[in-house]
Amino acid sequence: MELNEINPYVLKVMPSAMRKFDHDISVDPKIIKLTLGEPNFNVPDHIKQAAIDAINDNKSHYPYYWGYQELRDAASKYYRDKFGYDYPADQIVVTVGATEAVAVTVKTLFKPGDAVIIPTPAYPLYDASTTLNELNTLLVDTSDDDFILTPAKVQKAIDDHPDLNVKGLILTDPNNPTGVAYSKEQIAALAPVLKKNGIWVISDEIYGELTYGQKHYSISEYLPDQTIIINGLSKSHAMTGYRLGFIFGPSGFVDEIAKVHQFTVTAAASIVQYAAIEALEHGQDDSKPMLQEYEKRRDFVAKEMTEAGFDVVHPGGAFYVFAKIPVGLHMDSWAFVKTLAKEYHIGLMPGDPFGDNEYVRISYAASDEALAAAMKAVKQLVADHSVEPTK
Amino acid sequence: MELNEINPYVLKVMPSAMRKFDHDISVDPKIIKLTLGEPNFNVPDHIKQAAIDAINDNKSHYPYYWGYQELRDAASKYYRDKFGYDYPADQIVVTVGATEAVAVTVKTLFKPGDAVIIPTPAYPLYDASTTLNELNTLLVDTSDDDFILTPAKVQKAIDDHPDLNVKGLILTDPNNPTGVAYSKEQIAALAPVLKKNGIWVISDEIYGELTYGQKHYSISEYLPDQTIIINGLSKSHAMTGYRLGFIFGPSGFVDEIAKVHQFTVTAAASIVQYAAIEALEHGQDDSKPMLQEYEKRRDFVAKEMTEAGFDVVHPGGAFYVFAKIPVGLHMDSWAFVKTLAKEYHIGLMPGDPFGDNEYVRISYAASDEALAAAMKAVKQLVADHSVEPTK
Repeated sequence: MELNEINPYVLKVMPSAMRKFDHDISVDPKIIKLTLGEPNFNVPDHIKQAAIDAINDNKSHYPYYWGYQELRDAASKYYRDKFGYDYPADQIVVTVGATEAVAVTVKTLFKPGDAVIIPTPAYPLYDASTTLNELNTLLVDTSDDDFILTPAKVQKAIDDHPDLNVKGLILTDPNNPTGVAYSKEQIAALAPVLKKNGIWVISDEIYGELTYGQKHYSISEYLPDQTIIINGLSKSHAMTGYRLGFIFGPSGFVDEIAKVHQFTVTAAASIVQYAAIEALEHGQDDSKPMLQEYEKRRDFVAKEMTEAGFDVVHPGGAFYVFAKIPVGLHMDSWAFVKTLAKEYHIGLMPGDPFGDNEYVRISYAASDEALAAAMKAVKQLVADHSVEPTK
Repeated sequence: MELNEINPYVLKVMPSAMRKFDHDISVDPKIIKLTLGEPNFNVPDHIKQAAIDAINDNKSHYPYYWGYQELRDAASKYYRDKFGYDYPADQIVVTVGATEAVAVTVKTLFKPGDAVIIPTPAYPLYDASTTLNELNTLLVDTSDDDFILTPAKVQKAIDDHPDLNVKGLILTDPNNPTGVAYSKEQIAALAPVLKKNGIWVISDEIYGELTYGQKHYSISEYLPDQTIIINGLSKSHAMTGYRLGFIFGPSGFVDEIAKVHQFTVTAAASIVQYAAIEALEHGQDDSKPMLQEYEKRRDFVAKEMTEAGFDVVHPGGAFYVFAKIPVGLHMDSWAFVKTLAKEYHIGLMPGDPFGDNEYVRISYAASDEALAAAMKAVKQLVADHSVEPTK
């Protein structure tokens, strides 16, 4: 059998460069990693106990594929209270993390050949997902608009491609990798152009609970009939490894997505669903202590990176700082992160897999000690490697 | 937005009729269900403890997408010892149950438009999976060969479709829904025709540990370069709700499948992976007491169903009896199971979703009491509803 005989759309995508880089540098026993979007907090104890209780109570049988009714009821209430989502339980599907939620939504909503807009820099999963589903991907650079997607940019992407059937937009707010959080006005401004052009928004709001000094606004309020919301417990409750996500969307369409979900995974793990019920029913404030820590760390990292000569995007949410490498280093993002890993044993994410090779991403969901060591190493690298004054 | 504008291949598949029927009849508080492939055993205690330990030890972070190295090492050894699989850890991917394993394998191996053979009766997931991936499905009826796929039938399917590029076969051994387990000779006999025609076998061996009075043989021994094995812990360790599966296959191809897996779910849940390590390292004999029970129940159900006037397929494995409805009832499989559920409060699976509307499937992974009640009800239905002598 020959590899070139398999699905050509699978051959087109590469394994996640970020996860591969993270894996590769992990062989260094001295490495301190600020790479993955991985909270350094543990799952709150009451949620762990709920998972343990479910195990002891032998909750080990197939859940109904949409997810347990009790969990979808809890999600309906929790996200209504948090962000004003307006979805009853029968418009909510429980998934294996936000990743599966994105994968099955992209698979369902679009015909092969349709085009989907991805504002960049962006989480690399989206482009992989559109490519695997035989879609045309329109990457729209937002760096000249302070990393905010504007209605004008959406309209221009459509006008520039009269040959394509532009049917979707994948929006991440708060954003990964930039940490940018959209204001109410910025979100509301996008609705008319999307409505006029009949464009679905896949709104990835996985970082919705992690905003600093501002609220999170969901585009579903302005465009309910054309929005599929992706959310989950990975970031809000530090449950990345548990793999628990949600899809919210209009009746009928969500039923179609649920079908694809069923034939993709059957259901999310039973014991994890019980943990999630506890998180949503009694863990409304679980993210608060994390948020306080994250905000302190964000301020520290932004200050240090600026001092080191980087241009720092103002992060209003998530737990990332996206910073432009000083020109005096003459390094692209790969050269920078590889040098930092090899010589200083610090792991950061290159901007390249996100679509911007002049930037690096620092995940500050890490301990104060790790962040201090990382900032010291970055400054040392700049001092050691600058071939001309940095600013 | 209009439903007919979404992915037409998604519109083509229906939600699992079996799971819907199971869900629908569950509103009857008196219902006794022998519907899903759901062991009535609990997860063995030592495995539950391993999951609890992982929760308490905060093993809640992203696993590497292939699955933990320790788990893939354990799977390499366990399945070598059990069935002679010959795969090192770097040819094994950990998935969210066998469902995800099938979904990502079908997605990866074939080009849109390729044809895949599915011997029927078959688990409905396969046809949904080929349809979702824009493949042509060739259903090949095996009922006239005692439900065994023969090399002649494979060759005939190819010869009958000269216009199609037949690239795959999805084989389930032991079979669901028939319970038929292939002999060594029957498995070995399929290899030459598949090799000659360059056909991949997706070999679903999820019931491999559940055979009665005979061993399980894997086609991977005869056709290693063209086999992807699907397996997992749902049936062998009664871990259905935990969602833990494996893919085994040739280097290079498995890497491509792992990529699709990553962009579909990121990884299987961390705490479930730790439970799985325990199952494979110390649970080699966990299925033995279950097997003894299953064999007793199989004999009971086969005898009772025969007495009730059904033609029973001899089940050498899995935990299903597939039985032909007496002609004197003048009922197809839906009429039979709906009558049985409504009037007698017993749930069985209709044969129709598996591809044979003259049969019903009884899952005997249920308590002795449930089985006795079900057999009594079946006999009563036959007595009450026969419009002419049954045999």
